Amino acid sequence: MTTLLARVEQGLFGRLRRDAAADWAAYTQHEFVRALARGTLPKEDFRAFLTQDYLYLIHFARAYALAVFKSDTLDDMRAMAATMGNVLDEMPLHVSFCAEWGLTEADMQREPESLELLAYSRFLIDRGAAGDILELLVALSACIVGYGEVGAMLLHDPETVRQGNPYFRWIETYAGEEYAASAIAAMDRLDRVWSARGSENRYPSLLRDFRTAARLESAFWRAGQRRNFT
Amino acid sequence: MTTLLARVEQGLFGRLRRDAAADWAAYTQHEFVRALARGTLPKEDFRAFLTQDYLYLIHFARAYALAVFKSDTLDDMRAMAATMGNVLDEMPLHVSFCAEWGLTEADMQREPESLELLAYSRFLIDRGAAGDILELLVALSACIVGYGEVGAMLLHDPETVRQGNPYFRWIETYAGEEYAASAIAAMDRLDRVWSARGSENRYPSLLRDFRTAARLESAFWRAGQRRNFT
Amino acid sequence: MTTLLARVEQGLFGRLRRDAAADWAAYTQHEFVRALARGTLPKEDFRAFLTQDYLYLIHFARAYALAVFKSDTLDDMRAMAATMGNVLDEMPLHVSFCAEWGLTEADMQREPESLELLAYSRFLIDRGAAGDILELLVALSACIVGYGEVGAMLLHDPETVRQGNPYFRWIETYAGEEYAASAIAAMDRLDRVWSARGSENRYPSLLRDFRTAARLESAFWRAGQRRNFT
Amino acid sequence: MTTLLARVEQGLFGRLRRDAAADWAAYTQHEFVRALARGTLPKEDFRAFLTQDYLYLIHFARAYALAVFKSDTLDDMRAMAATMGNVLDEMPLHVSFCAEWGLTEADMQREPESLELLAYSRFLIDRGAAGDILELLVALSACIVGYGEVGAMLLHDPETVRQGNPYFRWIETYAGEEYAASAIAAMDRLDRVWSARGSENRYPSLLRDFRTAARLESAFWRAGQRRNFT
Repeated sequence: MTTLLARVEQGLFGRLRRDAAADWAAYTQHEFVRALARGTLPKEDFRAFLTQDYLYLIHFARAYALAVFKSDTLDDMRAMAATMGNVLDEMPLHVSFCAEWGLTEADMQREPESLELLAYSRFLIDRGAAGDILELLVALSACIVGYGEVGAMLLHDPETVRQGNPYFRWIETYAGEEYAASAIAAMDRLDRVWSARGSENRYPSLLRDFRTAARLESAFWRAGQRRNFT
Repeated sequence: MTTLLARVEQGLFGRLRRDAAADWAAYTQHEFVRALARGTLPKEDFRAFLTQDYLYLIHFARAYALAVFKSDTLDDMRAMAATMGNVLDEMPLHVSFCAEWGLTEADMQREPESLELLAYSRFLIDRGAAGDILELLVALSACIVGYGEVGAMLLHDPETVRQGNPYFRWIETYAGEEYAASAIAAMDRLDRVWSARGSENRYPSLLRDFRTAARLESAFWRAGQRRNFT
Repeated sequence: MTTLLARVEQGLFGRLRRDAAADWAAYTQHEFVRALARGTLPKEDFRAFLTQDYLYLIHFARAYALAVFKSDTLDDMRAMAATMGNVLDEMPLHVSFCAEWGLTEADMQREPESLELLAYSRFLIDRGAAGDILELLVALSACIVGYGEVGAMLLHDPETVRQGNPYFRWIETYAGEEYAASAIAAMDRLDRVWSARGSENRYPSLLRDFRTAARLESAFWRAGQRRNFT
Repeated sequence: MTTLLARVEQGLFGRLRRDAAADWAAYTQHEFVRALARGTLPKEDFRAFLTQDYLYLIHFARAYALAVFKSDTLDDMRAMAATMGNVLDEMPLHVSFCAEWGLTEADMQREPESLELLAYSRFLIDRGAAGDILELLVALSACIVGYGEVGAMLLHDPETVRQGNPYFRWIETYAGEEYAASAIAAMDRLDRVWSARGSENRYPSLLRDFRTAARLESAFWRAGQRRNFT
């Protein structure tokens, strides 16, 4: 069985990840991530992140709706619809997890969207509106695969604190087999769409989008920490 | 319990249906529909219709994907996603029904899109791309509700032949409780979106779209019968 | 100087045109076109066509608006904006031409959109909404280049009647240098976008769209002749 | 003649501006703006702003392209096309202005998009993709009108330094009659579209979008000052 950490080095995703190595490392090895692993992240920072992450999921589902619309085959449509459905269905899980941190769904919906959230989510929507399914899937891959990579890395990292770490459950979610399977499926799908629609001439612009997505992910760890924009 | 045939006279849908009465009657009481009920429709005509209807469902699902993207609330997103999922999930049922008529999925996918299919399905996509969720749901309602109304009317029509009518199963599908429930839910949703986004000033343009959809439904009964466009 | 009739055989457009030869011939050598050239087309048929063509231009401009939105470079944006501007600016010319045929702009705006118009214009909108700029430009090329080719062919056709042919001015418009230059520019642009975004794997689907556009053009000559859809 | 500063208090725009008073003041009376007026803004900050503003204009034109696509009338289409054309045509002016500050167009195009730019421009694109023309015009109005209001206020502000202020030409541009006329035309258009598509039930969501746009404008004054996202 291919593990996620082996798969991220292969195919179109592997190529993008290598060519965006600095941005990718800044995102997946962010200070926020390390503080999660050590259990030293201020709880207020985590609550701000969870709230923005909840708001983000709404737009993530909208972007996958565009992916259904833009798919070339019924098989792709169904795969995109399944991912979109998972996002919408798992929001209650996310909500119940947040509840343990004292955040109700109504609270989170009232919270203003942060600059980081607006930038990242609307960048995805733009790729979904203006480009074809390939451009959209490249942009979406940074999120889907990145969280799985973070989860898998932290699970195996000797510096990760398991006992008494309030963030360990979050790590386990993204390090789980189910999540890894969906990330691998997304990379497989990306390879198929790249075969159908890709070309060397398109690669530089796809890489630019991928790097932008990775940089926006880095910024997103701190989403909601600045109380206003300016 | 509200029956479908009572519900179609109420709310925004009822108003549109009354104001488009001639177009609506031309669609729901089309000669094709009567021939279905009497069992006199040439089988070749039905096969042409089934094939184009299969191809139509793909675009119908795409239009609902746009409805997910355009929804204002999580509740609307989930409702649109559920309808979209039903369309995609029920295509195998449609395919197995078509198989009894000697049509394989591969055959149907190879068939060119008819003028009627292109006109209707892309009109829906345009409403989904250019307008807001209200305009899209008005355009989509002619299909969802109309087939339920046709089914319910034919089931109760004394002229409908049940024994030995090869089309009776088709009638039963759209006359069923499950289908009626989904059509009623679509009308309820439409009323809510109209409350949130409607106004008297918008009504004339919504009616124009609804009438266009009804006229395109009329044309669609004969979709695929002309072998080429000209 | 490359003439239009030489240019249509080159580049991506030339390849699409060859591979869609039967559909292309059916469109550009349509009976309607020949009747225009001989001056034998019933005036009522021409009026129906002019009216639908006027309504079509609105959607043609909308499709070019999507092309501006989807362009990858400022240069492409400006080229698409210029074409869109030409369409909007030349509508008064079209309107004054129609006035000579007894059609006012208000009359034409009141006329219902024909099945042929709905099918063709919304197919273009769909390509603009769902695909990337390459898919959109391929779909749009059938119209832009085809009318120029029809004009140029008819101008040189010995069977074309010049004296007393009420349609000769229409032929002259599309046979003019200005129109030819814009059609050639569109083919040049298409070649550049194909270089940037194309690949052999994308070609079959682009050809399918091109053939659909050519078939829809064939149907469009008769647009508005059937007074209703069914 | 209505002056811009009187007009901004009237119509739908006036209502939105009043109801978003705190966000509007934070944007139009931003410290950046005051430093421009006094001539005390660090030149490096201005260069960062000019560069991001150049990159912003590309997306601003794209958003107006969506407005053409979404317009309900030919008159609206032409107005939106004219604004889009102005943006594209005036970019060379912007570029020559930037050249005086030592910025070439090639330099600016190489500069990465800032978080503020991504957030604001893609928020506009989303409103253009997901909503109707009313939602898009509300979102766009904060930029068009706000810069005119800033220009007009600074021109009349006794604290504004005219002699030797390197930013005074920038102020004059947005305080000019031509710019004011375009801002007034945008507010007039907005009132017409509100009449056609608005309703009290839609107002809260339009206000929310307007406030988000105003807050994103506030953030944008500092766009490009942080060299990276995190």
